[in-house]
Amino acid sequence: MAVRLMKESVLRSHPNDDECQDLKARYQRIRSETEALCAPLEVEDYGVQPIVEASPPKWHLAHTNWFFETFLLKPFVPTYQSFDRRFEYLFNSYYEGVGDRYPRAARGLMSRPTVDEVYRYRSFIDETMIASFTQPMNRYEWIERTILGLQHEQQHQELIITDLKANFGRNPLHPTYSESTDLPSQSESEELGFLSFTGGKTEYGVDWGGEFCFDNETPRGTTWLAPHMLATRLVTNAEYLEFIEDDGYRRPELWLSDGWSARQQGEWIAPEYWRREDANWIEYTLYGDRNVDPFSPVTHVSYYEADAYARWRGCRLPTEFEWEAAARDYALSPETSTRMTWHPNKHDTNDLSQMFGVCWQWMRTPYMPYPGFKPLPGTLGEYNGKFMSNQMVLRGSSCATPPGHARISYRNFFYPQDRWQFTGIRLARDID
Amino acid sequence: MAVRLMKESVLRSHPNDDECQDLKARYQRIRSETEALCAPLEVEDYGVQPIVEASPPKWHLAHTNWFFETFLLKPFVPTYQSFDRRFEYLFNSYYEGVGDRYPRAARGLMSRPTVDEVYRYRSFIDETMIASFTQPMNRYEWIERTILGLQHEQQHQELIITDLKANFGRNPLHPTYSESTDLPSQSESEELGFLSFTGGKTEYGVDWGGEFCFDNETPRGTTWLAPHMLATRLVTNAEYLEFIEDDGYRRPELWLSDGWSARQQGEWIAPEYWRREDANWIEYTLYGDRNVDPFSPVTHVSYYEADAYARWRGCRLPTEFEWEAAARDYALSPETSTRMTWHPNKHDTNDLSQMFGVCWQWMRTPYMPYPGFKPLPGTLGEYNGKFMSNQMVLRGSSCATPPGHARISYRNFFYPQDRWQFTGIRLARDID
Amino acid sequence: MAVRLMKESVLRSHPNDDECQDLKARYQRIRSETEALCAPLEVEDYGVQPIVEASPPKWHLAHTNWFFETFLLKPFVPTYQSFDRRFEYLFNSYYEGVGDRYPRAARGLMSRPTVDEVYRYRSFIDETMIASFTQPMNRYEWIERTILGLQHEQQHQELIITDLKANFGRNPLHPTYSESTDLPSQSESEELGFLSFTGGKTEYGVDWGGEFCFDNETPRGTTWLAPHMLATRLVTNAEYLEFIEDDGYRRPELWLSDGWSARQQGEWIAPEYWRREDANWIEYTLYGDRNVDPFSPVTHVSYYEADAYARWRGCRLPTEFEWEAAARDYALSPETSTRMTWHPNKHDTNDLSQMFGVCWQWMRTPYMPYPGFKPLPGTLGEYNGKFMSNQMVLRGSSCATPPGHARISYRNFFYPQDRWQFTGIRLARDID
Amino acid sequence: MAVRLMKESVLRSHPNDDECQDLKARYQRIRSETEALCAPLEVEDYGVQPIVEASPPKWHLAHTNWFFETFLLKPFVPTYQSFDRRFEYLFNSYYEGVGDRYPRAARGLMSRPTVDEVYRYRSFIDETMIASFTQPMNRYEWIERTILGLQHEQQHQELIITDLKANFGRNPLHPTYSESTDLPSQSESEELGFLSFTGGKTEYGVDWGGEFCFDNETPRGTTWLAPHMLATRLVTNAEYLEFIEDDGYRRPELWLSDGWSARQQGEWIAPEYWRREDANWIEYTLYGDRNVDPFSPVTHVSYYEADAYARWRGCRLPTEFEWEAAARDYALSPETSTRMTWHPNKHDTNDLSQMFGVCWQWMRTPYMPYPGFKPLPGTLGEYNGKFMSNQMVLRGSSCATPPGHARISYRNFFYPQDRWQFTGIRLARDID
Repeated sequence: MAVRLMKESVLRSHPNDDECQDLKARYQRIRSETEALCAPLEVEDYGVQPIVEASPPKWHLAHTNWFFETFLLKPFVPTYQSFDRRFEYLFNSYYEGVGDRYPRAARGLMSRPTVDEVYRYRSFIDETMIASFTQPMNRYEWIERTILGLQHEQQHQELIITDLKANFGRNPLHPTYSESTDLPSQSESEELGFLSFTGGKTEYGVDWGGEFCFDNETPRGTTWLAPHMLATRLVTNAEYLEFIEDDGYRRPELWLSDGWSARQQGEWIAPEYWRREDANWIEYTLYGDRNVDPFSPVTHVSYYEADAYARWRGCRLPTEFEWEAAARDYALSPETSTRMTWHPNKHDTNDLSQMFGVCWQWMRTPYMPYPGFKPLPGTLGEYNGKFMSNQMVLRGSSCATPPGHARISYRNFFYPQDRWQFTGIRLARDID
Repeated sequence: MAVRLMKESVLRSHPNDDECQDLKARYQRIRSETEALCAPLEVEDYGVQPIVEASPPKWHLAHTNWFFETFLLKPFVPTYQSFDRRFEYLFNSYYEGVGDRYPRAARGLMSRPTVDEVYRYRSFIDETMIASFTQPMNRYEWIERTILGLQHEQQHQELIITDLKANFGRNPLHPTYSESTDLPSQSESEELGFLSFTGGKTEYGVDWGGEFCFDNETPRGTTWLAPHMLATRLVTNAEYLEFIEDDGYRRPELWLSDGWSARQQGEWIAPEYWRREDANWIEYTLYGDRNVDPFSPVTHVSYYEADAYARWRGCRLPTEFEWEAAARDYALSPETSTRMTWHPNKHDTNDLSQMFGVCWQWMRTPYMPYPGFKPLPGTLGEYNGKFMSNQMVLRGSSCATPPGHARISYRNFFYPQDRWQFTGIRLARDID
Repeated sequence: MAVRLMKESVLRSHPNDDECQDLKARYQRIRSETEALCAPLEVEDYGVQPIVEASPPKWHLAHTNWFFETFLLKPFVPTYQSFDRRFEYLFNSYYEGVGDRYPRAARGLMSRPTVDEVYRYRSFIDETMIASFTQPMNRYEWIERTILGLQHEQQHQELIITDLKANFGRNPLHPTYSESTDLPSQSESEELGFLSFTGGKTEYGVDWGGEFCFDNETPRGTTWLAPHMLATRLVTNAEYLEFIEDDGYRRPELWLSDGWSARQQGEWIAPEYWRREDANWIEYTLYGDRNVDPFSPVTHVSYYEADAYARWRGCRLPTEFEWEAAARDYALSPETSTRMTWHPNKHDTNDLSQMFGVCWQWMRTPYMPYPGFKPLPGTLGEYNGKFMSNQMVLRGSSCATPPGHARISYRNFFYPQDRWQFTGIRLARDID
Repeated sequence: MAVRLMKESVLRSHPNDDECQDLKARYQRIRSETEALCAPLEVEDYGVQPIVEASPPKWHLAHTNWFFETFLLKPFVPTYQSFDRRFEYLFNSYYEGVGDRYPRAARGLMSRPTVDEVYRYRSFIDETMIASFTQPMNRYEWIERTILGLQHEQQHQELIITDLKANFGRNPLHPTYSESTDLPSQSESEELGFLSFTGGKTEYGVDWGGEFCFDNETPRGTTWLAPHMLATRLVTNAEYLEFIEDDGYRRPELWLSDGWSARQQGEWIAPEYWRREDANWIEYTLYGDRNVDPFSPVTHVSYYEADAYARWRGCRLPTEFEWEAAARDYALSPETSTRMTWHPNKHDTNDLSQMFGVCWQWMRTPYMPYPGFKPLPGTLGEYNGKFMSNQMVLRGSSCATPPGHARISYRNFFYPQDRWQFTGIRLARDID
């Protein structure tokens, strides 16, 4: 996954010491949360790249660190001495402006530096960062970039989880990430309902100057929506099984042409991590294998599967503008979201349920710049829009998203064939 | 290229004999135009598939014929006897509902049926079609589908030209399609100007019931445009050369990430069909090699190149909604378009010039269904939307589009890496 | 297929006029035989390259011509004017010393020059060659190279047939090369017997100075054979069907490791050109489809299949030294071989039957230089040994080999996975 | 690399207790040597598969263990309880008769079982093995298979070293395996000489019943050699540099056709692990980077490079029969070989120097069964010959071969493009 850059816009005036202290505390909290996520890992688990899209945890740990080193310490701390100059090459993800970089597909071949060295690299950066919060530097930009670095760190927190699952889910021993066995099976799910919207002139996105956001959420704009309906909750496994049993994976007329090719090439017959054993469908979760729970939301489906399912059901997927407008009025605020489990199963009682903290929801909207989108100057902004082709927008957040990271205007994006994220389906329909 | 299906909507009432006679004449004219396009070909030229996207002329001749056989003669003419039942398999393009089909990538391996047999197949279908225009059949649907078949035939007329160019342009002997050497070099080009638009609520698309259109142009809808400007003409070769000379093909920061990968994999250093000889750029055209003409529009660029060029220029590409709204008010009507040459060079004097009949223009709009888009019932409509992912919209028409085929609401679409069509660049800009 | 170069060694003394006249007559006969082979072809058939190994007939016609132009006319005829200088690039097969060459995999994309032009190219070369036989040139080398060119031409005669079969056999219309329907089914086959050989010191190969041979057959050498037996005839379809029915294609223990990979990748379940229709096995032949004839030799099997069959049968394949020694004493002379059909079915009454003119026979001997093998000087010989890795020797000749071309010491070679030649199986066994 | 199976033939009579005690001691020694080789590794180093041919150390540790479990403990120890039944699937290399197996290319993705678990798996097997040496079992077969298992273990000892080098040599940090810096540069090398041999009837190979050997060395046989010469030592780096500087990597006429393709695809410009820095050639060794030492033998060259070098030098590579016959009379006995360094540099004073313990030497002999070779019964022998295609024989042993493992009749084999083993060049020539 490409990580989206942001532009900090909170602090237009000179920040005071309290604000700096708050940020330092937040820095320490978020950084330690990354490491806490890795606590259940064996040393061996840190190094595996199971598919080219999924990086090893060690790489995530080092790359997020590299980000602070490259964009904070090197430009702002004149006395800064590099921990290891070669890491500049090893842990650059895709910033061409910073220089050459290690090939992405070979991230799993990097037995050195060791995990221990990477943790020492992190400690080194943390100490220098902490000491620098009180230095007389260009404080505004420092703060802006620190916030950016922390948001970036949180994005990689989610990837650590999903990428580890991509490893464990392919290992014949089916290791577990979390031993707790309290993943509740949902005893039932409410009937699928639809909320109606009359459409018309509608606003979306945000402008610089308010709360933090990434640049792809800006600028605020206007669009026009046709009348439509949105499903009150996500599609469940039981509902998705009907599609499978109705030969959904064998009927090309239900699929986009490119989706049908992907299905054939990937030999998909069910969502990622499902397998059939005799009459049962078993699903690998971060708690280990379990029977597919009928009432939990289906997850780990590609855009193509979500689209085919919707077509089979006589529906379609929502646009990101429909989703965002509805989320503002009818969803639980993302700020209240807390992580309950490492698998989608949360249900809230809002009119629109499961908008945040359960599964990312595939939009029928390709990921493109909003009208008036402006690239930022410099390396950080050099590539702001460079992923804006061939990918689809996802909205909401997932059970693996760090609490506090989601926003109503947040735009996630993946390729339509990607299945290793916690991605699910919210249906929509036109109103004639 | 995938051919877009349409739904005929002209004739809501019972058609009269005159209308049938008109259509029959039109049938005869368009069908013979297809064959006239092939007049300069040697038998050998009919069979080559130079790239997987470009089908052999013989296949186009047979497939368009198959379309009339499959969707007109078989369902509507009870006495119809198949010319050769095996052609149903050979010349199906992508209609899964019709049954199995011959693999697309192997179309160049089909030495049998011969060209002569394919022409006999066409004569056979023509005779049966002509005879059937006066039969007591379900006349409304017959006419609707005949019109569809003719529009389909015209789409393949354009492909015959572009696919032949893909063959000739790769042949070390550089054969010519047209011997006439009167391709005028433009002595100069007017300065690039921009028209300003205030935006706001805007309509696009068409509804069933008027003139013919394809289903992807429906239904008529409303959108909201931000203030913007559109270039008064296409980008010229001279202007594109500045980009090349400014190392445009070597600066990743100008490119979309997927575009940069495509550039590297394809080893692109200039538009398709250009090559450097000492200090000169030579371009293969259907008239043979010639020096790149500075004042002609650049053509055979991918979306990625168009996008990179626009970024380098401080501009962007238009959305299809901006383009369509402007075309309604400021462009020469597409109906007046006549073919002058087999290479883009026409210039008109409208406020927005070169909208039709020169180069297809890459939009920054991914090809997706309009809100309220409805799949048609049956095999013909089975796959209407199945190409609606991963492709970009192109608007206008090209020097290879048959006169009379273009429309203001016409939506063409190709993959962002495709370069073998006559594709060019119209710039746009935001107004803050 | 790579064509093997030879060194003419017949004429050590100055050739006289009669010898020149004989050679001229032979030139005219062999050249016209090539064209006679193409008589049943449609223009379209000349251009297809169905698999990368199988070149289009047009390419064979032009390349054999190019050989005479490059190695005879250009060096020996001072007044020679090139027919078209660009053909030097187009029709070079693999002689790096001659310069750049057109990519092999794109030979099927060459719609120009046309078939007609290629025939004119041949006529032009023929006229110049014929006129040059009486010129005062370096007659010895001229004759030597002319003989080489004619042997080369005959090798391509066989390839024209096998490569055309590779095209027709993949065409869903199953065209026929020969309309005659008189391919005799063999009413029975004699029981499979084995001849015993005591082995010991044995000679193989030939030295320069006698009849024509290719350089890979030289020099004559000595080897030592263990006691062994050779099958008196080739394996029949009926015998091969027992292997299929005993799950031979599903039992990895019968296969070489690389062979099993090839089988899986190619999804082989039977010899090339076989397909199952209900209870029957149908085989495409150059006469069209027919039921697999139980008593005909199995053909179009790879080395891997031949090896697996032999292992299943408790046998092995012969070495080329065993084969050659036995052929000298027990086989029908290859000179007596005449072509009867375009499919293997001939049976002779020698102690070792079907050694020539039926199927090439896979040896268990990898294709390597004989001890003392010497590369020839110059471009012609530059690559004499360059194919001596990864290929296996085949001995004998096939139903597609031109009469008079085979020799007891002849060494053919193909990759172990190749199946498009007329290749069959002769068994051998050790004697303890 | 495929591991070659052997058949123990030492003990034809009933072994006595002393023999069993000896073998037990040898078992303990060799098994602990494997683990000692891994002592310098970090946990992370155990898991990496840098190229598909090179397995992770952890896999080698577990697979050699699996061998004892599968072929000794399970069949011979009735009370044996599997350590973990799933390991049967995970650590099977290629024995189809044992059942399904984990895909080879994914061996680097196996973060579980951990290194620690694999060591526990080894301890468990060791304890059971040790306890079983005194059990009343079929002692003859037990001993035979134990010896086989230990020879197998030693083969993997060499692979642990070469596969680890394939990892470290690609890591941008260039880690070292051994910190000792005492790798001696050779101050000079003696001039390259050749020993002459008259050839004639010659024996090779061994029969069952003597010292241990693998089955591919049997049976003893007779061949006939032409007069020839063998180089007295291996080709040095300085000699190989002359080839590089004479454009050896840019002249197709020096290469086998498949070799030239491999060179182009691999972009080879020097042996594996060499890189150019300004005017110097640097070589990665297990001691870290160092300047290429002119007097050390060149290593990490493919068969194709060895063959091209020999051709450039006017020589050829030896056959395995020439090599073996000469080794019997003129080489230092392999039993005296001790390991001095982890890089080839040893020089002995025999007539034929550097035959063992320096570099494996590419033979011009493809790896094929000796006449009379017999497959063994059962799973162990099921695949004895299955690697006998497409590979080339290597003779001698390398600096990474465990002391005591080499034999004069030993036949190693790799694909001609393989470069990650310690492979070098011994020249040969014909005598006319």
